[in-house]
Amino acid sequence: MTCAPVVDTSRSPFAKLRAVSVNAVILTDHFWAGRRQLNREVIIPGQARLCEATGRVDNLRVASGRKAGHFVGWFFNDSDIYKLLEAASWQLAGSNDPELNALVDGLIDEVAAAQQPDGYLNSYFMGERAERRWTNFDYHEMYCAGHLIQAAVAHFRATGKRSLLDVAIRFADHICARFGAEDQGKVFGTDGHPEIEMALVELDRVTGDRKYLDQVKYFIDVRGYGKLGRAFGRFESSYHQDRVPFREMTRLEGHSVRAVYLNCGAADLYAETGEPALHEALERMWSSMTTRQMYINGGLGSRYENEGFGTDYELPPGRAHTETCASVANFMWNWRMLLIDADGRYGDLMELALYNSVLSGISLDGTAYFYQNPLLDDGAHRRQQWFPVACCPANVSRTLASLPGYLYTVSDNAVWLHHFARSQANLTLPDGRAVSLIQETEYPWDGKVTIMVGTAGNFAMKMRIPGWVGAGWTLTVSGAPVDQAVVRGYATISREWSAGDRIELHLPMPVERIESHPFAVDNQNRVALMRGPILYCIEAVDHPGVDVRLFALPDQAALTADFDPDLVGGVSVVHGEAIISDADLAWDGKALYRRYTTASAAASFKRTPLKAIPYFAWANRDPGPMMVWLRRA
Amino acid sequence: MTCAPVVDTSRSPFAKLRAVSVNAVILTDHFWAGRRQLNREVIIPGQARLCEATGRVDNLRVASGRKAGHFVGWFFNDSDIYKLLEAASWQLAGSNDPELNALVDGLIDEVAAAQQPDGYLNSYFMGERAERRWTNFDYHEMYCAGHLIQAAVAHFRATGKRSLLDVAIRFADHICARFGAEDQGKVFGTDGHPEIEMALVELDRVTGDRKYLDQVKYFIDVRGYGKLGRAFGRFESSYHQDRVPFREMTRLEGHSVRAVYLNCGAADLYAETGEPALHEALERMWSSMTTRQMYINGGLGSRYENEGFGTDYELPPGRAHTETCASVANFMWNWRMLLIDADGRYGDLMELALYNSVLSGISLDGTAYFYQNPLLDDGAHRRQQWFPVACCPANVSRTLASLPGYLYTVSDNAVWLHHFARSQANLTLPDGRAVSLIQETEYPWDGKVTIMVGTAGNFAMKMRIPGWVGAGWTLTVSGAPVDQAVVRGYATISREWSAGDRIELHLPMPVERIESHPFAVDNQNRVALMRGPILYCIEAVDHPGVDVRLFALPDQAALTADFDPDLVGGVSVVHGEAIISDADLAWDGKALYRRYTTASAAASFKRTPLKAIPYFAWANRDPGPMMVWLRRA
Repeated sequence: MTCAPVVDTSRSPFAKLRAVSVNAVILTDHFWAGRRQLNREVIIPGQARLCEATGRVDNLRVASGRKAGHFVGWFFNDSDIYKLLEAASWQLAGSNDPELNALVDGLIDEVAAAQQPDGYLNSYFMGERAERRWTNFDYHEMYCAGHLIQAAVAHFRATGKRSLLDVAIRFADHICARFGAEDQGKVFGTDGHPEIEMALVELDRVTGDRKYLDQVKYFIDVRGYGKLGRAFGRFESSYHQDRVPFREMTRLEGHSVRAVYLNCGAADLYAETGEPALHEALERMWSSMTTRQMYINGGLGSRYENEGFGTDYELPPGRAHTETCASVANFMWNWRMLLIDADGRYGDLMELALYNSVLSGISLDGTAYFYQNPLLDDGAHRRQQWFPVACCPANVSRTLASLPGYLYTVSDNAVWLHHFARSQANLTLPDGRAVSLIQETEYPWDGKVTIMVGTAGNFAMKMRIPGWVGAGWTLTVSGAPVDQAVVRGYATISREWSAGDRIELHLPMPVERIESHPFAVDNQNRVALMRGPILYCIEAVDHPGVDVRLFALPDQAALTADFDPDLVGGVSVVHGEAIISDADLAWDGKALYRRYTTASAAASFKRTPLKAIPYFAWANRDPGPMMVWLRRA
Repeated sequence: MTCAPVVDTSRSPFAKLRAVSVNAVILTDHFWAGRRQLNREVIIPGQARLCEATGRVDNLRVASGRKAGHFVGWFFNDSDIYKLLEAASWQLAGSNDPELNALVDGLIDEVAAAQQPDGYLNSYFMGERAERRWTNFDYHEMYCAGHLIQAAVAHFRATGKRSLLDVAIRFADHICARFGAEDQGKVFGTDGHPEIEMALVELDRVTGDRKYLDQVKYFIDVRGYGKLGRAFGRFESSYHQDRVPFREMTRLEGHSVRAVYLNCGAADLYAETGEPALHEALERMWSSMTTRQMYINGGLGSRYENEGFGTDYELPPGRAHTETCASVANFMWNWRMLLIDADGRYGDLMELALYNSVLSGISLDGTAYFYQNPLLDDGAHRRQQWFPVACCPANVSRTLASLPGYLYTVSDNAVWLHHFARSQANLTLPDGRAVSLIQETEYPWDGKVTIMVGTAGNFAMKMRIPGWVGAGWTLTVSGAPVDQAVVRGYATISREWSAGDRIELHLPMPVERIESHPFAVDNQNRVALMRGPILYCIEAVDHPGVDVRLFALPDQAALTADFDPDLVGGVSVVHGEAIISDADLAWDGKALYRRYTTASAAASFKRTPLKAIPYFAWANRDPGPMMVWLRRA
């Protein structure tokens, strides 16, 4: 049987948890299974067509000599094909899908043909540009190699085929032979855009060849001394995490995706080496991110100009960069931290990012994408079919494709449930025992989760109790309460299970007002609405005749939720009542500033219905203003 | 006698007002005269030293062959020398200053020597780069030419010398011969960075050669068709005002300084041609700016990534770009609109920008500059001695140098008083009659303005009644009330004046709370403090032991002002009492987001003194958080 874990920690001495195979879990819900089916039927085929239409595949054909012409587009465009191959590969795990297999094999054939005899592979640095290989560390050659390796690992794990893996190994060997310590006869180098680090750790795991791990350590060790130069002549060393040595980092800085991809690689390396300084740096950065640098939707990146981090508490809602890729990276990093530490806070963050800033990156119909996921908009920001820099689409796609692999992990004598979705799981404990579980839930719209244990035996069930849950949650086995002690985010039920035992977890989901730290000045006097793991927003289209930017939400206003099967794919909607001050309505458009007097205060106001939808579903209907942070009244 | 108006509308058929010579007015106050003296003694010499130290002057010497070497720095660095020359020239108007004259003559000698036989002059495009002249419209060749011409006009007007003017004319003729309609045997072109337009109108006024005016019309006419290409491969046509033909523009778009410099040139052209479509476009843009696109400090530019405009009402306070140059440009544009239309709203905006975002661009000691003037900061944004792109310093300097020239204008039988500062004026009406006026005031700290008329005669005094003034202002002549009707921003006193008549204008200056349009979401539930023309802010340094970011200002809190001669050069300080909620104080730094409950609301709070200083003076003491927009309570 296929064994295709996303991050294989089964032999990693410093990981507390083992990932399970993507196909060990079958999603059976509407929410995620439907999206994964959309991924197979619409999203992946659509991206494949666009990779053809935009010359990305032709770039490979030109490189291999199969076609005459010239490279077109950005120098990192090969990576979009690799990410598409990775997405398709996870989708293939455990499935019989001749059509998708044929698509994948065809693309792999083009990739393989473009590889040079020495293993080098990058369709931009061909012909007259061949002389410029490895001359500028921000030209993403190793970044592309990293995505090639990740695709190859996914393809090998999911299908057992070596066709792409052998290509990846040749390129990886080329890189390992070239870059390294000068006393080993190698040359200095690491990539301006981290990505290859996490890829090489997985290549180590697939091949058992430790040189890849040594290479990852080298790539991390050489950063932080300002030796990479400026990126495209514009950005300082912090942009590509070259200002401070990794083990001295105290906060996230520079380009968001670069920063968090690097942390993924460092976490993977830690899982193998257990080097404390790596873990300490990762913890410091995680703490900085979650207390000072992260948007409420799990998004990262406060500034457009560097696609990256700003100062502490700099979290402007309107021009939030919050790149979809950065949220995918946040999800990936927390997955790795979870595997290492088995701490539910990482599961919380995976959930937060997944529902609220990864998922927002794609339209409900799977045909259009956000690059940025702002928390405030006037209606102009709309998803696009594609981008000149098209990193985000396939990042969403590979996340959806691999999604079943994140619900559960195992450890000695324990099954860990991290994410809630109706599903069937056939897991294998480290000692080889099989455990089958059926999860019934209407999550994320209802917090009742039932696990039907299908296998008798003595093992622990570890249930993530989300950080967002308040008082009143319950956990029972076949109707009897069990110990509700939560240790590092998990409740544990250790017992001799009988087939047919029912674990029932009930997580109350009232609508909650959330406030942010007052140093995040942009959100002062405001609340956002969340229900369970879902962040809400208000959109103009649900409020005809009034402007949602004028809304204020009284502290006392009751907020209720009900499920609307016909709205934006079926979501729980939050209802309440906002007020609009007559003073605000009285602005005549002829002034931007005016004297504030007591008459300007919201002494008199109108009440108006407020209808909030999940943030991830915004911008799927008529354009208009959208707000997440609502001013209080 | 020297006649050195800044924008000479004395023969412009479509300008209602005539500028007076910079040296027709002698500032005698502490506020502006002190800063103009600082300009002479510290700012200009400092910039001259830095132009030497950074290779800017050497670039000219290399270009002329007087020195061996290579060009260093940005391709627009010549412009910094030209702006310095312009600043020094305005400073020279009416003064006997051998040292400054020598500095200016020395620099002009270097400039003149670098000019090519064909009139071309740009020290970047020399040697091997000479072949690349005029090949990329965003390499600022005409922008630099524009600053050369402005400097030459200022130098000629202020000193009567033609040394720089002749250089400028040769370069202008080179440009006029090359660029224009193809049916006249010329080639297409205009600059990616507007600036030359306003310069050439003034060159027309100095020389009487109408071809310069035709050239300005051509430069404006060819914009708006996307023919200039992308700027540095990064920006779209809107960045350099090439997306929409000028006469169809409805709002400001793209790079702020580019946009507003272009409007300066168009206004100057209108003053000569009276073309209604130009005026209409300018009015539309001015209306858009003042109702949807301008910061409360007169700053322009909401986005760092394009140094320019965002969408309507997009006015984030923290990463406000609000480039000092853009505020200078705003001042310059409104000066031109004022000359054309004689409408006090333009005088209001000049005053707003001057006090609150031009002046903030320089430290109190004249040695450090802001490029950006944000309205919210955590303490990291500090003025710099210089910048790699050093456009802002000399823009402040030339504004300070020319400042006396903006207080008054004249028209047929009328003297217009636009700006208030203690001063002596010796003006000449269009019919040749001399009018001398002495202005006594403690403005901007006190709204009492006394004008002592020194010349008998029949003429009108037009007094700007600022838009910020509320009820209770008074106007008297020698103690007797006069007609207070305000037409287009001016009160008019027409009479037979006797020498010794005293006009007394009293403008009450209570501390005002200002709110912004609710669509400017960032400022919702907030007020800014203004007193007279001065915007205030709170700085950490005045509030030890508390964090100003936690302050909220109750609507009922009394606000008073008193003058502190020892604080930041002597300013009126605003005093009041803020509150800090105990819930905000209870954040422990371990979370960025938390559940908002009634306990989180500001039910209990502490009172704490609030001390606000003029925004222009911030960041002159110990660093720390600064806020302009205060949340209401």
